[in-house]
Amino acid sequence: MGGLENGATNNQNSSPTTTKPTKTSLSPDSMINLDQGDPTLFEPYWRKMGDKCTLVIEGCDLMSYFSDISNICWFLQPQLGDAIKRLHRVVGNAVTEDRHIVVGTGSTQLLMAALYALSSPADRHPVSLVAAAPFYSGYKDQAEFLRSGLYKWEGDAHTFDKDGPYIEVVTSPNNPDGAVREAVVNRGEGKLVYDLAYYWPQYTPITQPLDHDIMLFAFSKCTGHAGSRIGWALVKDKEVARKMTEYMQISSIGVSKESQIRAAKILGVLGEGCRTADSENFFEYSHSILKERWERLRNVVKNSRVFSLPKYPRDYCNFTGKYMDSNPAFAWLHSKEDIDWERRLREHKIIARSGERFGASPKYVRISMFSPPEAFNLFLERLSAIIDNTNGNVVT
Amino acid sequence: MGGLENGATNNQNSSPTTTKPTKTSLSPDSMINLDQGDPTLFEPYWRKMGDKCTLVIEGCDLMSYFSDISNICWFLQPQLGDAIKRLHRVVGNAVTEDRHIVVGTGSTQLLMAALYALSSPADRHPVSLVAAAPFYSGYKDQAEFLRSGLYKWEGDAHTFDKDGPYIEVVTSPNNPDGAVREAVVNRGEGKLVYDLAYYWPQYTPITQPLDHDIMLFAFSKCTGHAGSRIGWALVKDKEVARKMTEYMQISSIGVSKESQIRAAKILGVLGEGCRTADSENFFEYSHSILKERWERLRNVVKNSRVFSLPKYPRDYCNFTGKYMDSNPAFAWLHSKEDIDWERRLREHKIIARSGERFGASPKYVRISMFSPPEAFNLFLERLSAIIDNTNGNVVT
Repeated sequence: MGGLENGATNNQNSSPTTTKPTKTSLSPDSMINLDQGDPTLFEPYWRKMGDKCTLVIEGCDLMSYFSDISNICWFLQPQLGDAIKRLHRVVGNAVTEDRHIVVGTGSTQLLMAALYALSSPADRHPVSLVAAAPFYSGYKDQAEFLRSGLYKWEGDAHTFDKDGPYIEVVTSPNNPDGAVREAVVNRGEGKLVYDLAYYWPQYTPITQPLDHDIMLFAFSKCTGHAGSRIGWALVKDKEVARKMTEYMQISSIGVSKESQIRAAKILGVLGEGCRTADSENFFEYSHSILKERWERLRNVVKNSRVFSLPKYPRDYCNFTGKYMDSNPAFAWLHSKEDIDWERRLREHKIIARSGERFGASPKYVRISMFSPPEAFNLFLERLSAIIDNTNGNVVT
Repeated sequence: MGGLENGATNNQNSSPTTTKPTKTSLSPDSMINLDQGDPTLFEPYWRKMGDKCTLVIEGCDLMSYFSDISNICWFLQPQLGDAIKRLHRVVGNAVTEDRHIVVGTGSTQLLMAALYALSSPADRHPVSLVAAAPFYSGYKDQAEFLRSGLYKWEGDAHTFDKDGPYIEVVTSPNNPDGAVREAVVNRGEGKLVYDLAYYWPQYTPITQPLDHDIMLFAFSKCTGHAGSRIGWALVKDKEVARKMTEYMQISSIGVSKESQIRAAKILGVLGEGCRTADSENFFEYSHSILKERWERLRNVVKNSRVFSLPKYPRDYCNFTGKYMDSNPAFAWLHSKEDIDWERRLREHKIIARSGERFGASPKYVRISMFSPPEAFNLFLERLSAIIDNTNGNVVT
């Protein structure tokens, strides 16, 4: 799921880099916003693709509410459903056979839809919603903001001990810490939603096609097209797919068709590029950017007596046919020093998100690895300076 | 607001006309779906516009979450905001000066956002939500489906007598009955949301630029582009606009940019067409279609001893500079006979929506005036036959 969450408007004036990230000119005094995961760093690849990805829409196209009334998800454009299935087959990250596809305004809307579909209006008590800490900070906001009587945020799955039905969101690779995950609670009355936004080859080795009841994916994290707001759910159970569709119907009467056909086109080009060896495919491109950034970041952090980064096991990636490292979209920076690192980094003009927002200690901060190149360079400079300082001085 | 609401999936197999409405071939046995207001009948106009409305999007365009971080609604594409303001100025239906624009995935999502913005999490009791009957059937679904503790559907504004804060939705012209409306409850603690989806010249005379605190509009009903899922709110109060934006952020992290720039282009062409006299403008075109349909429908109904249609006062339209009739998007058909007309019409292979869904009697049915030409013709034939029958026989 997304790397934006509630908080963007709070930082309105602090980031000069978000609107036109490729045209920034940062000064030594500029605030660097590494709070959100805005994936514009993949833009050059799509620019290079030229006309292949260009979409032309006539004024009279796509006017109806309906896309395919024979489908449970009647507003899903068939070409998007086809492109999604083809891409999963090429990448090998998820089983799509005999699955219903529900499209959403980002995977964010689909998580809301899943909560609606998995809760029971007949129950007197709301179903518990949990996720293992550190968990994506948006889940809590989504579960709580409307004070729904259908579901209730109960926080960390590790410490969850209430009886009764529950929903566990399993985020894998995890946001914020990039870990590959399994369900934690494992009780009979539990229902699982797998948020697989980052289960793509640029971030993590693809070890198997996952085969869970509800799996969420996001166009934004797959290709970098966050502005399109397209997500999809692969759903085993017909009734769950029907209720998720109902959620979309009541809350927004479907999902933008323009975005759907654009996503279909771009996912199609991406999938085709993986099958032919004509040029560098998108996953190679985006993997090489992230890999280089992680190497540079680890080089800076390894000099620190205070900071550390998670280590990820190398694993065999079925997609690339090679042993690969993980290069997550966020760095989950840990410090031995017991201070509020979000605040401390902000004094150094770096905006990151405190571990507290993810159900963890403020000794952790989450840092987006998606920033424009200039911002990333400046971040490494500033972090180096902080590390030099902390190595020489006791931090108070 | 929309004419679709909860129910589309129930009628999945009954409407052959919805997916590709211009290519239907109805037989005498075909079910005609007049339940939803899918505005595809305006398609020929936009086809005629040719390249003027064609949108080209490159693969590297619109990738960021952000559109304009200096705006409260940070995901609103500036060109859409500009096109909305220009069009309202040309049409004269709403004041836009010093207003915040919040864009939504249809006006449906914006109503949800308004409920969130106007309720107070600090209050122990949910704020009451009312609308004068007959009211749009979707409001109840939207208010109730998540069992929110923030707001509570209390039904007909005419009979509402609870103390305390309330929100009244004023739909004008009204869905289902086309009436021009004002607020009904009028108490100090009330907050008003004006749903003005149908306050455009093809449906009703534009008598004044409206100037309310929150006004909702929908691209679908303005131009017929329902598939784009674009709505907008004109909002006086900054804090309300901020909270509506927050709702969008938590529930879907913004709104499709592809749809936004397409809406900007089409609203721009529409506005420009109204200012120049080169060719028939869209409002003249769509008005003439609806006017002709209403005349034909009234011609059929006038022979009936049982059925009647609302009468609308002629009024001076500032936009056209002429006295005009109303030609609503739905016909609100009333029968003297005390039977369930939705069920009776269905026996005659006409799907319409019972008055009961709108807080009214089942002696009323709502009929979409938006159906493809062939379906509308068949509807009139079948209605004539029903009327011939009811004139000769007592209906039981």
